[in-house]
Amino acid sequence: MQNLGVIDGKTELIGLFATPIRHSLSPTMHNLAFKKLGLNYAYMAFEVGNEELADVIKGMKALNIRGFNVSMPNKTKILPFLDELDDSAKLTGSVNTVVNENGRFIGHNTDGRGYIRNLKEHGFDIRGKKMTLIGSGGAATSIAIQSAVEGIAEISIFARQDEFYSKAVENARIINEEIKQFSVKANVYPLENKEQLKKEIASSDILTNATGVGMKPLEGLSVIDDPQVLRPDLIVTDVIYSPPKSKLLQQAEAVGATAINGLGMMLWQGALAFEMWTGQQMPVEYIQEKMFRDTGTGTAAQFEMIKS
Amino acid sequence: MQNLGVIDGKTELIGLFATPIRHSLSPTMHNLAFKKLGLNYAYMAFEVGNEELADVIKGMKALNIRGFNVSMPNKTKILPFLDELDDSAKLTGSVNTVVNENGRFIGHNTDGRGYIRNLKEHGFDIRGKKMTLIGSGGAATSIAIQSAVEGIAEISIFARQDEFYSKAVENARIINEEIKQFSVKANVYPLENKEQLKKEIASSDILTNATGVGMKPLEGLSVIDDPQVLRPDLIVTDVIYSPPKSKLLQQAEAVGATAINGLGMMLWQGALAFEMWTGQQMPVEYIQEKMFRDTGTGTAAQFEMIKS
Repeated sequence: MQNLGVIDGKTELIGLFATPIRHSLSPTMHNLAFKKLGLNYAYMAFEVGNEELADVIKGMKALNIRGFNVSMPNKTKILPFLDELDDSAKLTGSVNTVVNENGRFIGHNTDGRGYIRNLKEHGFDIRGKKMTLIGSGGAATSIAIQSAVEGIAEISIFARQDEFYSKAVENARIINEEIKQFSVKANVYPLENKEQLKKEIASSDILTNATGVGMKPLEGLSVIDDPQVLRPDLIVTDVIYSPPKSKLLQQAEAVGATAINGLGMMLWQGALAFEMWTGQQMPVEYIQEKMFRDTGTGTAAQFEMIKS
Repeated sequence: MQNLGVIDGKTELIGLFATPIRHSLSPTMHNLAFKKLGLNYAYMAFEVGNEELADVIKGMKALNIRGFNVSMPNKTKILPFLDELDDSAKLTGSVNTVVNENGRFIGHNTDGRGYIRNLKEHGFDIRGKKMTLIGSGGAATSIAIQSAVEGIAEISIFARQDEFYSKAVENARIINEEIKQFSVKANVYPLENKEQLKKEIASSDILTNATGVGMKPLEGLSVIDDPQVLRPDLIVTDVIYSPPKSKLLQQAEAVGATAINGLGMMLWQGALAFEMWTGQQMPVEYIQEKMFRDTGTGTAAQFEMIKS
């Protein structure tokens, strides 16, 4: 039959199971890439929480789908339902990508690798460097572990002294003990200790915000009170991409520092998953151009586009 | 975001669960219709047999999908997994369409209605008429029951005297007893009784083949040995649409009878399901034009197109 440009009987599903998820950019990103490369896949998002997860995973196995992504709140809850975990999933205790290998569901976590890959695309090599990392949630954990695995020298983790602080301590313990073969020094401090934060940033090459401070409902806020702790030769990265320029990145640009938002990390974590499912490289530049017009940290117009 | 012509995070899945199914025309048909009407749905086929069915249905409920089709070998096996059956599903004991109504999976069977609707489109009204129906499988059962419900006067069912004969007897019993309010007379005869077949066709307005005789692996064969039992004022229909002109339909055209293949039934059973899922009418003429070029019984070129 002639190619009618629509899904046919041979199209393979790739899922995304999370909630809330209907506003995710991942379906548009992957489907543009499938279309561009002429791959007969369709990527679709489904509202799935912890309660539905077990039935959904069993259903996906019965459908024998090629793979899927999971996001909050399922990244850790999915572990018992998988047949195998790769190192990134084991060390972070969380999964964002599942690949069906001959009927076995293998869990991966491409968030950390996506973060590092995006830094490389911006010309920054983390090897031998020092990072100040704010946060201890899923994104922070992936960034911390993967940075350690890929050769960072030292990492100072700051977290609020609430229920998440113990996770920051645990992340440092994993780096210092479980993967001590990488010889990375990990420190943990309370985010409330502003003097220590200033001191660690002063000796760091890169400052990373991996918290939600700066996006709704905390838009307009920054983890940094005093912009004077920033400096021109510092790389400042934010996992936030909506708004494309968080308060922190505005502060960074104001002092002449390099500011990198979370869009590239989002794109590259997707590209790494895409490659595992399809065996082909995602046309990342094409996606950036098509979805975001340019490859920078974005403008107000893009912000509207991303949100709508 | 601008419409990029691809699936996004809000796209709703409609499934098709059967095996073998990858060569089905239903995904192309429904997706062309969604695209034409600007509806944000995607229809996808999955290889699902009886063993996978329970997990798949539970998974679909967990995903809260709007609906799906099932085909062989799941049309009867799915009944215990549904929350409710409409009359068409109850009377035929089989389901081809499921609609999610507020989390409840309702089973329907649109095959029979699709058949009758297609006859209407060809200008033929079954009310008060007599049909000779060959077969007792899923398609034959749907045609028999729906014809009775919609006002046929008499129906003579022929089936081979093998394990399916009892199903023919059962279908006649349902028409004569369970839905006797429609006052339809149903008769059952062995297909081996050629004299009776000739006699019933002679007094019928319509002859219907609802068996696989005429398609692979029985292509080139016909349920009718002697074409002289056909006549110009007879309507001859076949559930087969690949090839578009079965041996039976060739015999019918040779004597000047009206020949109608199974394509219209396939389209209309889909259109009826489409309307239940989306609340909108499928653009059937557009689909016919786009997928099959014309609305007739087809040509050799179309046959190739349908199969590829």
